[in-house]
Amino acid sequence: MRRADALSASDIVPDRTEVFKRAQAKLSSKKVAKMSGVKSKLLTQIAEPMTSSGNKVTVVGIGQVGMACAFSILTQNVSSEVALIDVNADKLQGEMLDLQHGSAFMKNAQINAGTDFSVSAGSRLIIITAGVRQKEGESRLDLVQRNTDILKGIIPKLVAQSPDCILLVVSNPVDILTYVAWKLSGLPKNRVIGSGTNLDSSRFRFLMSQKLGVAPTSCHGWIIGEHGDSSVPVWSGVNVAGVRLAEINPNIGTDADDEKWGALHHEVVNSAYEVIRLKGYTSWAIGLSVASLASALLRNTYNVHAVSTLVKGEHGIGDEVYLSLPCVLGRNGVSHVVKQILTPEETKKLQASATLMAQVQSGIKF
Amino acid sequence: MRRADALSASDIVPDRTEVFKRAQAKLSSKKVAKMSGVKSKLLTQIAEPMTSSGNKVTVVGIGQVGMACAFSILTQNVSSEVALIDVNADKLQGEMLDLQHGSAFMKNAQINAGTDFSVSAGSRLIIITAGVRQKEGESRLDLVQRNTDILKGIIPKLVAQSPDCILLVVSNPVDILTYVAWKLSGLPKNRVIGSGTNLDSSRFRFLMSQKLGVAPTSCHGWIIGEHGDSSVPVWSGVNVAGVRLAEINPNIGTDADDEKWGALHHEVVNSAYEVIRLKGYTSWAIGLSVASLASALLRNTYNVHAVSTLVKGEHGIGDEVYLSLPCVLGRNGVSHVVKQILTPEETKKLQASATLMAQVQSGIKF
Amino acid sequence: MRRADALSASDIVPDRTEVFKRAQAKLSSKKVAKMSGVKSKLLTQIAEPMTSSGNKVTVVGIGQVGMACAFSILTQNVSSEVALIDVNADKLQGEMLDLQHGSAFMKNAQINAGTDFSVSAGSRLIIITAGVRQKEGESRLDLVQRNTDILKGIIPKLVAQSPDCILLVVSNPVDILTYVAWKLSGLPKNRVIGSGTNLDSSRFRFLMSQKLGVAPTSCHGWIIGEHGDSSVPVWSGVNVAGVRLAEINPNIGTDADDEKWGALHHEVVNSAYEVIRLKGYTSWAIGLSVASLASALLRNTYNVHAVSTLVKGEHGIGDEVYLSLPCVLGRNGVSHVVKQILTPEETKKLQASATLMAQVQSGIKF
Amino acid sequence: MRRADALSASDIVPDRTEVFKRAQAKLSSKKVAKMSGVKSKLLTQIAEPMTSSGNKVTVVGIGQVGMACAFSILTQNVSSEVALIDVNADKLQGEMLDLQHGSAFMKNAQINAGTDFSVSAGSRLIIITAGVRQKEGESRLDLVQRNTDILKGIIPKLVAQSPDCILLVVSNPVDILTYVAWKLSGLPKNRVIGSGTNLDSSRFRFLMSQKLGVAPTSCHGWIIGEHGDSSVPVWSGVNVAGVRLAEINPNIGTDADDEKWGALHHEVVNSAYEVIRLKGYTSWAIGLSVASLASALLRNTYNVHAVSTLVKGEHGIGDEVYLSLPCVLGRNGVSHVVKQILTPEETKKLQASATLMAQVQSGIKF
Repeated sequence: MRRADALSASDIVPDRTEVFKRAQAKLSSKKVAKMSGVKSKLLTQIAEPMTSSGNKVTVVGIGQVGMACAFSILTQNVSSEVALIDVNADKLQGEMLDLQHGSAFMKNAQINAGTDFSVSAGSRLIIITAGVRQKEGESRLDLVQRNTDILKGIIPKLVAQSPDCILLVVSNPVDILTYVAWKLSGLPKNRVIGSGTNLDSSRFRFLMSQKLGVAPTSCHGWIIGEHGDSSVPVWSGVNVAGVRLAEINPNIGTDADDEKWGALHHEVVNSAYEVIRLKGYTSWAIGLSVASLASALLRNTYNVHAVSTLVKGEHGIGDEVYLSLPCVLGRNGVSHVVKQILTPEETKKLQASATLMAQVQSGIKF
Repeated sequence: MRRADALSASDIVPDRTEVFKRAQAKLSSKKVAKMSGVKSKLLTQIAEPMTSSGNKVTVVGIGQVGMACAFSILTQNVSSEVALIDVNADKLQGEMLDLQHGSAFMKNAQINAGTDFSVSAGSRLIIITAGVRQKEGESRLDLVQRNTDILKGIIPKLVAQSPDCILLVVSNPVDILTYVAWKLSGLPKNRVIGSGTNLDSSRFRFLMSQKLGVAPTSCHGWIIGEHGDSSVPVWSGVNVAGVRLAEINPNIGTDADDEKWGALHHEVVNSAYEVIRLKGYTSWAIGLSVASLASALLRNTYNVHAVSTLVKGEHGIGDEVYLSLPCVLGRNGVSHVVKQILTPEETKKLQASATLMAQVQSGIKF
Repeated sequence: MRRADALSASDIVPDRTEVFKRAQAKLSSKKVAKMSGVKSKLLTQIAEPMTSSGNKVTVVGIGQVGMACAFSILTQNVSSEVALIDVNADKLQGEMLDLQHGSAFMKNAQINAGTDFSVSAGSRLIIITAGVRQKEGESRLDLVQRNTDILKGIIPKLVAQSPDCILLVVSNPVDILTYVAWKLSGLPKNRVIGSGTNLDSSRFRFLMSQKLGVAPTSCHGWIIGEHGDSSVPVWSGVNVAGVRLAEINPNIGTDADDEKWGALHHEVVNSAYEVIRLKGYTSWAIGLSVASLASALLRNTYNVHAVSTLVKGEHGIGDEVYLSLPCVLGRNGVSHVVKQILTPEETKKLQASATLMAQVQSGIKF
Repeated sequence: MRRADALSASDIVPDRTEVFKRAQAKLSSKKVAKMSGVKSKLLTQIAEPMTSSGNKVTVVGIGQVGMACAFSILTQNVSSEVALIDVNADKLQGEMLDLQHGSAFMKNAQINAGTDFSVSAGSRLIIITAGVRQKEGESRLDLVQRNTDILKGIIPKLVAQSPDCILLVVSNPVDILTYVAWKLSGLPKNRVIGSGTNLDSSRFRFLMSQKLGVAPTSCHGWIIGEHGDSSVPVWSGVNVAGVRLAEINPNIGTDADDEKWGALHHEVVNSAYEVIRLKGYTSWAIGLSVASLASALLRNTYNVHAVSTLVKGEHGIGDEVYLSLPCVLGRNGVSHVVKQILTPEETKKLQASATLMAQVQSGIKF
């Protein structure tokens, strides 16, 4: 259940969550200045400007992952209003200013930031990248508990400020933390989503594109299940222009395959570790992956993405756990789950992940 | 007060407005089909999809102008949900299908259409391009009255379906019809806007760019006042990189100017006539101009555009009329008007337009 | 082999092609004006501006289809330099001006137009939408011959101006005319492409999206073969998230299917006729479809699209004919064809289309 | 002449430049894989894919600044082909993989990287972000000399690989290093440009927007001269909708101004220091600023930006130095410089900067 991506996203450590409550310095840039001399001579006020764009996104946690999410959303014009939340007031102010200085190049998007949750008020979408990394020798459950404790201090306050929001959890281990966020939020399951294997699938499609010389968006393949080591590649669905590679190479994905297509999945699993080893963290791909989800959610497109969702009842899973399956995304979050036709082995792997999740979850203290 | 742009936008003639009431065939595409066999086996429903994107735009009137507006908004991703309204059910269905067939290339935008106003329900922005052209021998007032009668059958119903909308009037004569729409709508003045001289200004900037070899967006100049023959170029504001051309050429815009920069304004005034003479109507530039306004209004950017707004109290105008001035646009419509420093002559021209508007308005039967 | 799309694109009739030679009024906008007084005082010239963007697109024929192609390419920023060619000098001037007036809203794209082929010089991509419609009682071959005669007057001159270009034929009947264009051009087969069933496939995906409530870009399906009545839907490839609908519904696409999925293909085939009946012509969807091809070709993306390509040797076809198959597109045109696994019936239909094409082609006088 | 932005961009230190020569591990991703079993059964090759997009951008130096430049260019679709160069092979591989994993979300852009200059071959634009920071106690000249030594090892090799490129220098001190790059490159002056005060101007416009409640792109103001502490705000050009603030407030920018507009310029100057103090480096705004220049240069738009250019002969400057002035940018680099009308004091400041530059330059050993 270990996973490497986004671990460096954390800037919010448990013992500092109290800071939130006491945060005094609200960093929010006052958009509409008082009528100065020049302003009053230059402009006649006709009506109060509206403060919200209706497509507001809040990013919680401004590590490399959080900032890559915010920057991808802004440069791709997914939202015109982004708020940042973190406990590190200095870094927060620095990131806000750095983005604001470029706002003329991002269609004048509004950028705000604050250590206080009020800066997130009225968000349509809240992206959670806060969390801590695994310490040396720390058990998996201990890590989950520490991150759960962080979320306890965050989620209820976010939901109080934005009761109609969709929560998109990016922090790791993402499947369990999305479950935790769902429990803590009181929101319907369709509005609490984990970034899940959307990134794994996009990595798979890129590797496939390199092997075939075909654009990633024309290479189709789905990685489902747990985001990380035990993710499941659904080989039956791997295709180009509707041509299943499994029809060309029936051994695809198995040990009997001379071409070693299974190596692509191994590479996907290792990607996060590899990138972290090489550059210290992952950022761009997860940021872009999250921006693609944000676009589907805010623009109400009904696109299908592999995201972490409550899977009880799917593929024979009886536990109340979050795992990634292809989901239809829109302004109401997950409206549908796609029922893939899995092999017995794929189903078994999914169920094993579910059982593991349930075990870990049973130890969490809420 | 004659003006040529957008006259061909008209598909809604007075004697057909009754059709609206009796419209039976609602053309709206039913987005969420009933669960067919395949669908129910393919998808598990998790939650009801939301039907609205929160950035819905309705275009009323689907002549060349209306369709260029809709297409510009869709291809530039200004909105992800567009509804079309017209009385011509066949053309409406054709335009809707033609757009829908390309929706995969427009980020899966939702496109609907109907002869019934209910298709516009919940719009943030409603763009009015409906109206009739001047008949031969028809007086200006008669034309305005005919178009007023059309708006009477449209505006109250649109506002009833979308009480929080912003109305953006494109039909001509745009300044008077925006006034009429404001009166009929009962909306606050900041939320009823005419497309006005935003297009004239963009034409001016293009012509300036050709004369100087500099990109249009780096050429700055403002045309204000009445959209059409009596529009006013504000020469003092014409600049590149903050360098006023009037400082280089003090006679700019006057008869004494050897370089004849005034010809640029004449060309702007003639542009609509010229394009209509050459291709039969204007479409692309007005569509793009309207999309730029829609972007500022929906994304809440506070951009400044020259649009038709209620100018009573500005530049010594005492009448309650609509004329174009540079306005700050956001999600609440016009929040501020920029107070330009005009020459006595420019002020006089503006005031003369205002007086003329007021006279025509006094004859309108509501 | 009849097909309806784009028939209205025609503004170039055989007996007027001579006009090209004699065209005197070159309409090209002189981008870099002579140094006027203000200009010379405002700007110091450092170097000669470069006249080409390196991504120039020429659109030949400015009917509804040609203009929708040009506008889609410009508003979606696929190219920053578009030239228009037609024999109708007035309409050409009107369309050019109308686009130029909006260039500030299209990232300052350069737009030029001319009746003379020199305006196309140095194009990377040339889109052919010129052609005539079928007259009443006219035989298919007569129509093809008339359009061939038009292409004879166009293609060699275009290639002379832009020897490195890719030709993208949109005029109908598109498969045969692409073959004709290839023969006339002397270009390698990979650089002569027909817009083919890219549009049919996008229509199919939209209809599928309506039936399932899933975004068009997440609905996958390929229509191949002849663009028009005898096109072939490849049911085995129809999928959502890699789940083949044929696995859920083995009768899909056949008469035995209770859900009548085959009706979707019939609707695709009828779409062009239906839209033309309703609005008089098709424009938006074909324009967007062509812009998507232009993007893959200019940006060198290796995306897979169903386009008309020389199919000799594929699927047992022995004739030298053009038909649509999924192709990998990049800056060198078609680099690869995807070998779909077809049913015997699908193969038979493709071969029948090929035989028909070959017959018609054998009667063409070059 | 001190300046803070982008100092952290450096990953290329003098004593490591030798590494380039010996670099063995070429990291370039082999785009076109050998025809594997599946590939050969899936695809028929029609023609060799083209390896270049015609709009290739190379970024040299992959610190925070270099990566923000690359990511801004990719997410905003300014180029579809980006190469990265650095001496740190591990980080390089990590950044390349991280971008590649997201390429499906960036229109399938091609991303390559290498420690060897051959990876940059055929670039249209090369962005230099490599360089070292000032050491404690180091003189300005010593710093310049160290960075000059780095550029000596880079520039000639880059130009050898891409003789037609435009060089855009971002490394600091940018004005002097652009001069150095020009000298080393042998390229005409119009094709060697420094990112200069384009960022300062965008910061100024943002601050102005906050003071007035108007979008940054509707707030106009130009900062020229040296990028950094001695930059010159041209108050006469500061305007909204052509209304000069100096006409409303004649003391603007001076000590006599009660509203303290001069503080905006001080804030611009301090911005880099402030952001570096708060978050450790600057990245987003400089990345976006550079992407805006790249867009004008690659798309050939003739937009005006304040960039560092050879200013000999402008504003009475006799020395051969680089400073920022508003320039017209296109595919040939700087085609024109805008001649602003400056106050005697503004001119004096510019000339003083020029003299200082010339002094420092005279001590550089090439």
